[in-house]
Amino acid sequence: MEKYLITGFSGFVSKHFLEYLESLSKQVTVYGLDINYPDFIYSSYSKVKCTFNKIDLLDKSKVDNIIFQFKPDYILHLASYSSVAFSWKNPVASFANNTNIFLNLLEQIRALNLKCRILSVGSSEEYGNVFEKDIPLLESHKLNPVSPYAVARVSQEMLSKVYVEGFGLDIVLTRSFNHIGPGQRNIFVIPSFASQLVNIKKNNLPAELTTGNLAIIRDFLDVRDVVKAYYLLLHKGEKGQVYNVCSGFGTSLQTVVKIMTEILGMNVNIKIDESLIRPSDNSIIVGNNDKLKKACDWETEYSLEDSIRDVVNYWSNVL
Amino acid sequence: MEKYLITGFSGFVSKHFLEYLESLSKQVTVYGLDINYPDFIYSSYSKVKCTFNKIDLLDKSKVDNIIFQFKPDYILHLASYSSVAFSWKNPVASFANNTNIFLNLLEQIRALNLKCRILSVGSSEEYGNVFEKDIPLLESHKLNPVSPYAVARVSQEMLSKVYVEGFGLDIVLTRSFNHIGPGQRNIFVIPSFASQLVNIKKNNLPAELTTGNLAIIRDFLDVRDVVKAYYLLLHKGEKGQVYNVCSGFGTSLQTVVKIMTEILGMNVNIKIDESLIRPSDNSIIVGNNDKLKKACDWETEYSLEDSIRDVVNYWSNVL
Repeated sequence: MEKYLITGFSGFVSKHFLEYLESLSKQVTVYGLDINYPDFIYSSYSKVKCTFNKIDLLDKSKVDNIIFQFKPDYILHLASYSSVAFSWKNPVASFANNTNIFLNLLEQIRALNLKCRILSVGSSEEYGNVFEKDIPLLESHKLNPVSPYAVARVSQEMLSKVYVEGFGLDIVLTRSFNHIGPGQRNIFVIPSFASQLVNIKKNNLPAELTTGNLAIIRDFLDVRDVVKAYYLLLHKGEKGQVYNVCSGFGTSLQTVVKIMTEILGMNVNIKIDESLIRPSDNSIIVGNNDKLKKACDWETEYSLEDSIRDVVNYWSNVL
Repeated sequence: MEKYLITGFSGFVSKHFLEYLESLSKQVTVYGLDINYPDFIYSSYSKVKCTFNKIDLLDKSKVDNIIFQFKPDYILHLASYSSVAFSWKNPVASFANNTNIFLNLLEQIRALNLKCRILSVGSSEEYGNVFEKDIPLLESHKLNPVSPYAVARVSQEMLSKVYVEGFGLDIVLTRSFNHIGPGQRNIFVIPSFASQLVNIKKNNLPAELTTGNLAIIRDFLDVRDVVKAYYLLLHKGEKGQVYNVCSGFGTSLQTVVKIMTEILGMNVNIKIDESLIRPSDNSIIVGNNDKLKKACDWETEYSLEDSIRDVVNYWSNVL
């Protein structure tokens, strides 16, 4: 029976990964680690036997012991201090913690000489500021990280390559672009819009949506397509290789708002909040996903409209 | 009066930097930090007023206090866990300590909003494995670090750029190639050869020199040319820019041995020690120093023969 260790277990990507595992026709065992308790039920799956342990991944002795006991076949490393804004306020914590939690995992796999494949989840933030002529971004594009968070992510990639080449570890890497899907917290842009709009509609509030810059274009990939890519990369990805995990097409936030208001049958006025506009934000970030498609026979299954509809429905149920 | 904080004060580069400062026509103040005591006298200079404090740079509160009290105009950050071999045995310590000691400095400069220029000393190791067609290496060449030490150095560069762009710090960066000069410990290749040969000659021992692969070609720069470059970069370098510090020409270790034995008037047999041959070593590493020359009006003053002669004389006096 395949054994998966998932870090960042309590996040919404992990929940969707469990649901993807449940949809497959085999029994698997999952050991989840997170510093927070999950807000979803993980004990009711029939094919996924789940254990959870609330720990800080910086606690090396605990991590060591869990890996020694569980001996995972696969590690899905989702845990991170993933906020770019946090990293500007706490650059050292962001950099050191992100790299240290990753190194703690690698060191124990190395010490035990475990046959274990690790998916190192990186970020499109690693590309930094890019020119429109380079869109869609290929994995071979120069990395130019512009935040402490992004530097940590590039360091994680470089360390992975050293552990693959120098110590023989089996690591596959991603650069993951914006996720969209039910369950994502509304500190992110799309669930923020959806929760605001649903709240307005449900409570007959003034039809005013607070936004940042709606002209920016991002590559949104449904979280259910993301987790399928992660599963396939764990099984079919090439050791030491980096894969963009993205939809391959760009959508402006303007378009996102338009689709949402159509689904909800609403008209809203836009109120720009200057504090939400980051001066150094790229106007456009879109990835090329050919490498992932070729390696894994992966295709997106959810259209942007499907995803937005599900996000709107999620917030309609939650609020 | 200019105030210099020097980390890695007890190393041989620092000693030569002090001598360079002493050769200038102005009084300066230096505060030296190192985890080890220096083995040279630093109190007898006439123009350089020197203080030393034995501390571990990982001790953030001590570092903070020293920077707060001293308020340096310039920081020459020489300190590092600089052994590639150590980094393979202790990858986490090498990576974490190298980045943490650097971040401890930056954070205090940022917190105090000090007007202070920092020279971040990097390494040619950052280039990793390169093709001969790319020699001599330009600063724009892709970085491909292949050891934990080299990853730490690239991370230090990326962090520097974030602190320059995001926090307005004044950091100039180097990628420094092989140093040669009197005072370097004989764990390095050239002083190892020199000390072996001097020892053979002084004690009439069998004329056998133990070496690794003598065919490899490296870019050796006299430490006195290195420290002049560091001084000039601190005063004339462009904020946020990276400069190769190198001679611009390559010399095989075979040639180094030939020059040394000619100076000493000896004939030796070569005994290859397989344990000294690293499989992943580049056959050739040579840098391009045009950027440094242009920015600083810097030129090398010591020929390779001068340097080797001084190294041989140093070991003749020491042994």
